[in-house]
Amino acid sequence: MIKANDPSLKSWIEVDGNSDFPIQNLPFGIFKTGQDKARVGSRIGNKVIDLNALYVLGYFKNLPFEQSDFQTDALNTIMKKGKEATTDLRNRLSKLFDEKHTDLSNNNHHVEQVLIDVDQVEMLMPVQVGDYTDFYSSRGHATNVGTLFRDPANALLPNWLWIPVGYHGRASSIIPSEQMIKRPKGQTRPNDDQDPVFGASKLLDFELEMAFVTFDGKPLGENITTAEASDYIFGMCIMNDWSARDIQKWEYVPLGPFLAKSFASSISPWIVTMDALEPFKTEGPKQDPKVLPYLEYEGDFHYDINLEVGIKPENSEETTVCNSNYKYMYWNMAQQLAHHTINGCNIRCGDMMASGTISGDDHSSFGSMLELSWRGSKPIKMKDGSERKFINDNDTVIMRGHCNANGVRIGFGEVSTKVLPAQ
Amino acid sequence: MIKANDPSLKSWIEVDGNSDFPIQNLPFGIFKTGQDKARVGSRIGNKVIDLNALYVLGYFKNLPFEQSDFQTDALNTIMKKGKEATTDLRNRLSKLFDEKHTDLSNNNHHVEQVLIDVDQVEMLMPVQVGDYTDFYSSRGHATNVGTLFRDPANALLPNWLWIPVGYHGRASSIIPSEQMIKRPKGQTRPNDDQDPVFGASKLLDFELEMAFVTFDGKPLGENITTAEASDYIFGMCIMNDWSARDIQKWEYVPLGPFLAKSFASSISPWIVTMDALEPFKTEGPKQDPKVLPYLEYEGDFHYDINLEVGIKPENSEETTVCNSNYKYMYWNMAQQLAHHTINGCNIRCGDMMASGTISGDDHSSFGSMLELSWRGSKPIKMKDGSERKFINDNDTVIMRGHCNANGVRIGFGEVSTKVLPAQ
Repeated sequence: MIKANDPSLKSWIEVDGNSDFPIQNLPFGIFKTGQDKARVGSRIGNKVIDLNALYVLGYFKNLPFEQSDFQTDALNTIMKKGKEATTDLRNRLSKLFDEKHTDLSNNNHHVEQVLIDVDQVEMLMPVQVGDYTDFYSSRGHATNVGTLFRDPANALLPNWLWIPVGYHGRASSIIPSEQMIKRPKGQTRPNDDQDPVFGASKLLDFELEMAFVTFDGKPLGENITTAEASDYIFGMCIMNDWSARDIQKWEYVPLGPFLAKSFASSISPWIVTMDALEPFKTEGPKQDPKVLPYLEYEGDFHYDINLEVGIKPENSEETTVCNSNYKYMYWNMAQQLAHHTINGCNIRCGDMMASGTISGDDHSSFGSMLELSWRGSKPIKMKDGSERKFINDNDTVIMRGHCNANGVRIGFGEVSTKVLPAQ
Repeated sequence: MIKANDPSLKSWIEVDGNSDFPIQNLPFGIFKTGQDKARVGSRIGNKVIDLNALYVLGYFKNLPFEQSDFQTDALNTIMKKGKEATTDLRNRLSKLFDEKHTDLSNNNHHVEQVLIDVDQVEMLMPVQVGDYTDFYSSRGHATNVGTLFRDPANALLPNWLWIPVGYHGRASSIIPSEQMIKRPKGQTRPNDDQDPVFGASKLLDFELEMAFVTFDGKPLGENITTAEASDYIFGMCIMNDWSARDIQKWEYVPLGPFLAKSFASSISPWIVTMDALEPFKTEGPKQDPKVLPYLEYEGDFHYDINLEVGIKPENSEETTVCNSNYKYMYWNMAQQLAHHTINGCNIRCGDMMASGTISGDDHSSFGSMLELSWRGSKPIKMKDGSERKFINDNDTVIMRGHCNANGVRIGFGEVSTKVLPAQ
């Protein structure tokens, strides 16, 4: 048991029982307040912790960091220091905010400089993403897509059970929660026997995904094994990997999705560390056929993370449209990373790798409107009486995720994105 | 006519008639010498020009640059200043090294600090690549691939003549000329009715491509038109976009090539500016069917760049296996950039976009071994008597490119990469 995960720990900062951010979480993010510069923060309850202030006040003595690591617009600076350093940093925070330690809590003048109400801060992109990779690792999703677009009898393509299929995504358009997006425009071909047309996408969709960010990897030409994978993963966030289904359908053969995805991928702003997620590891599915040796793994690499998606029409109430779980993955992060590097591909500090849409067996757990509305044939009822086949203009899509074990709830907060009309 | 392109210009630095680097070129790159730090350089003949030294010696007065822009390991610092600034910088170099100007040439002490023999420097990656996009814009290549793998009667897929098809590539594994690569390992399925196997790729291939690098673009949600495209493109290099055909065949459905490409893409180290390439613009092919309005363009956006590929077996002579030209592109850079951003996708300073394999109509102009050896059925004879269907261990693949017009030859130098055996 990592000490900072001890369920008996309590912070001197008040934390609501339903909060995603007890002292056992201590995620990392980038925030700013008003005109101040961006800096590194953590969070307990409804308080954001200013790590730059803690550094300046001398609370990070004997840790391998400099002030510029905290006065920065991306967590890459602290991630560059590696896993041991970031684990030590989280442990130091755990100690500083533990009710049994009074170094900081007794110093009101310091507390005032360090803690900020969460509604006073703007959360920014947590990481400068180098390369973004999107996997396709949920069997439920791959089966649904194969059933909808190809052959229900052979829904999974021949390679799917052998390879954690993935593809390169667009890093520049990964944006934090709260940043609004515009409905994308592009080429579609509504009728197979007519010429394509140009216009706003009519089939805008969300994709419920989880993403992880990496530390610096090995040099080009070397691979990372499943046993080594944990050393290279810093933490996770929720991702809404926006998709324009009509653009995708016309463009994706033979080189894969491109503009149907690259207009935006939204993420939750707090990176929850793998250290914090350790207690929520769970067994993965039996993999049959037996995977090739480089994809075998020991121990548990799946995580029990409850996920939900809500749609909030403008001036109306939110309707939950999906309840899912990250444990529904067929391929886990260790296998994804081992596969990604088996050809010698190098990973770098700040790379982001997403799960692909997460869908369970049950219809209510499907992670996209494509699946939930079964390609538009089963519209979803909203609380306000309206229906959705896909996402409408001015809808806000909200994804949330949290784990529960040993009486401790750790969560990711949310990624919330409003869709503006095409320009 | 841009003044720095004037064919009558001569430098006080001696330049061989066959050099790729007359004073009309003045490309940009990153170099280092011995233990010194990386810095920005240009080149005339066999001399590398140290731009950091020129800055320190005061030759860049009234240009919008700081020393840190030149004492850097990536051209992004100067590209961040935008097109006008980099054009002015090249014009300043043109003046300093023009035989009619003696400010610098008369100062031997300065000349010694500024010029370095090309064989004394190590050329590094010129650009920190944000996102890397690979297009598929040569009709010859797309037709050949379609003929080999699908249906000769319908070689082009239905979207190909409507869309500059492209996909996201891996930025981390883009490497400069001279960096050796290892043959990649991975999953392949040699027989469709048997399970896949793991091992070194047996079908390692080069892909002859040209790539361009971008200035900062517009914010997420806005597009760049074909008419605006020139303002966002800094310059070009040659790219060998390595491919493992057997890995690709098994992995690429339905999300496109992934590990078959991500182990390495090699580039020539000098970025030749679009300003320098201006005199080599040429008309593109007639596009039929007529493209959608956002892909229409005025003026010429194709470039007449002679390209060649050689294979040099170890301890043996090089054999030229391909003579091609960049003008064989169907879709041009303006169309590629307009398409890439039509959905609102943002481009950033340092993004790299490659052409896709460039193949002309003639067999000798095919830009990959897959096409040259027609999937292995027509082995290529080397000068040493050996044969190649694909690339062997310890082969060095060398690509070169240059333009000729008005008595001026401007080139890219070469991208040369030796293939080591799998580890």
